[in-house]
Amino acid sequence: MCNHHTNITTRVLSVPSAKAPFEQSTISRRDLRPDDVLIDIKYCGICHSDIHNAHNDFGSGVFPMVPGHEIAGVVSAVGSDVTKFAVGDRVGVGCFVDSCGECEFCRRGEEQFCTKGVTVVFNSVGYDGELTYGGYSQKIVVKDKFVVRIPDGLKLDVASPLLCAGITTYSPLKHWNTGPGKRIAVLGMGGLGHLAVQYAHKMGAEVTVLSHSLNKKEEAYKFGAERYYVTTDPATFTELAGQFDLIINTVSANIDVDAFLSILTVDGALVNLGLPNKPDQYNVFSLFAGRRSITASNVGGIRETQEMLDFSAEHDVTSMIEVIRADQVDEAYERVLNSDVRYRFVIDMETL
Amino acid sequence: MCNHHTNITTRVLSVPSAKAPFEQSTISRRDLRPDDVLIDIKYCGICHSDIHNAHNDFGSGVFPMVPGHEIAGVVSAVGSDVTKFAVGDRVGVGCFVDSCGECEFCRRGEEQFCTKGVTVVFNSVGYDGELTYGGYSQKIVVKDKFVVRIPDGLKLDVASPLLCAGITTYSPLKHWNTGPGKRIAVLGMGGLGHLAVQYAHKMGAEVTVLSHSLNKKEEAYKFGAERYYVTTDPATFTELAGQFDLIINTVSANIDVDAFLSILTVDGALVNLGLPNKPDQYNVFSLFAGRRSITASNVGGIRETQEMLDFSAEHDVTSMIEVIRADQVDEAYERVLNSDVRYRFVIDMETL
Repeated sequence: MCNHHTNITTRVLSVPSAKAPFEQSTISRRDLRPDDVLIDIKYCGICHSDIHNAHNDFGSGVFPMVPGHEIAGVVSAVGSDVTKFAVGDRVGVGCFVDSCGECEFCRRGEEQFCTKGVTVVFNSVGYDGELTYGGYSQKIVVKDKFVVRIPDGLKLDVASPLLCAGITTYSPLKHWNTGPGKRIAVLGMGGLGHLAVQYAHKMGAEVTVLSHSLNKKEEAYKFGAERYYVTTDPATFTELAGQFDLIINTVSANIDVDAFLSILTVDGALVNLGLPNKPDQYNVFSLFAGRRSITASNVGGIRETQEMLDFSAEHDVTSMIEVIRADQVDEAYERVLNSDVRYRFVIDMETL
Repeated sequence: MCNHHTNITTRVLSVPSAKAPFEQSTISRRDLRPDDVLIDIKYCGICHSDIHNAHNDFGSGVFPMVPGHEIAGVVSAVGSDVTKFAVGDRVGVGCFVDSCGECEFCRRGEEQFCTKGVTVVFNSVGYDGELTYGGYSQKIVVKDKFVVRIPDGLKLDVASPLLCAGITTYSPLKHWNTGPGKRIAVLGMGGLGHLAVQYAHKMGAEVTVLSHSLNKKEEAYKFGAERYYVTTDPATFTELAGQFDLIINTVSANIDVDAFLSILTVDGALVNLGLPNKPDQYNVFSLFAGRRSITASNVGGIRETQEMLDFSAEHDVTSMIEVIRADQVDEAYERVLNSDVRYRFVIDMETL
């Protein structure tokens, strides 16, 4: 782990090796550079991709690892050049903590597409050559450009999942012009889906939830859905043929792509947010008939993340969460893998 | 065949049964309705989809069949309500001869997406209940709304393939905003591809041809391509990684979708114009990394077909053709199937 001697040490939850139980330990954070912000982390959400990394499903894990990219906290110190934040400000950090800052994508605020590569908040080597450690931690040091403000209207615990799950659903809805007159389907109503439903509804669209069971029907209506269909019933696809401008697919498993394309209208798009292990397949004819698209989206940039938080506060969009203690993370991981969470676990960092 | 007795008879090339050789025979065309135009067909292009239909590859063939949807000719009579065309006008007819006229797509001039279904120029049952017979024929009667004007600057023989191959390539290039500063790749340089290269170039984009061999390199440069790469060389995909805004895929065979997605830039689209028999497959990760899309396009509407012809005349875009006699169509079909044509066969209807 990071053994440089600095003045900033912090308690963390770390995974010593792939799939091992979490341990509580201590690491150092870097001393503040002129553009750095030191954050006292209050809450950190648990995202499915934390689990993929902790289990080394992608094969790129460096251990020990401190996961966590849904960070909400309070500024406790700032570097000498920081003007945007002051001690006491309520702030968040999401997936990225650095990017080249110079490529066309960074310049237009879409750091997720940085041609030199973004530095991810954990398990990533930064531009300074140091490995990053994430938000399952009591303190973190982050460059000010990658820190966003959490509006007063949002509580820190419910805000934390917005830093990944929120922007991951908000960004594609905005990009594909969600608004009044649009019909949006949300496939899967979990951590991502329950936010997608709220955003699409608050943007003015008509929202339909497509789920493998009727279990979440009542909650879907509370989140703003107007219709709810079960995907295991083939009649769903006949009834909904040609209806949707957009399908936000939050499911990570392989799906019957042609069936979902058939319920899109002309110029409709199937937007994948999850990453199945195996390839998906489709018939070109399913696209051809209505100039439909298969596409995918990966979070959003920092400017849009701030916009998403402001929108969430203004329109009362919040994640529905279950707050857990630091010693419950292993159990929470099990429950996420069993889809047994409504809808996001958030770790209370005071319990660490 | 159509045996109604009318005053209009015409010689045709017809296929008596799937895959049978062509026969020369005579059919009747309907008497002119108030909004009809009678056209003396001078030339008709041969499109690969004519062959699919004549061979009953889609299983929906009604025989005898008269193929042909790349029709160029001269108006020889008009119905009592026709004001847009007069005898002697040079005109064209493409894939469609009718649509509902009332749905949102018809109203906005995108008849190809008509919710009640377009009537195709051959092997299709019209709104009047009659089977349609296409352009391998000396005369045809078509509703005025589905007839387009061929500008003086275009010769009828080189104009005829534009009615399908032209609009099929022009429409997606326009839809996905081809213009200065855009990088367009054209995959496959046949009947469609050689037009796609010209349109993209004349719209101001930088054009790259991707082909399975170097055979057409010189001609690609003449059509306006600036670069030419061979797809059988894996280094092509490394060298072109992340470069293109759009790939116009004119190949009907299955392709390595992930490889082609890898040469798209952020928000780039792989647009399929051909219809492979088997499903294609892709990894969501190939889309995810740059919000890329897989999509497809099917000709364009009547208004855009007129725009394409006007653009072609203004910018000197023409199909490179080989004019054949009516008794050479069987041989031409063989040659199309062997990719032995540069770049489109056109039947001279005076030889029928």
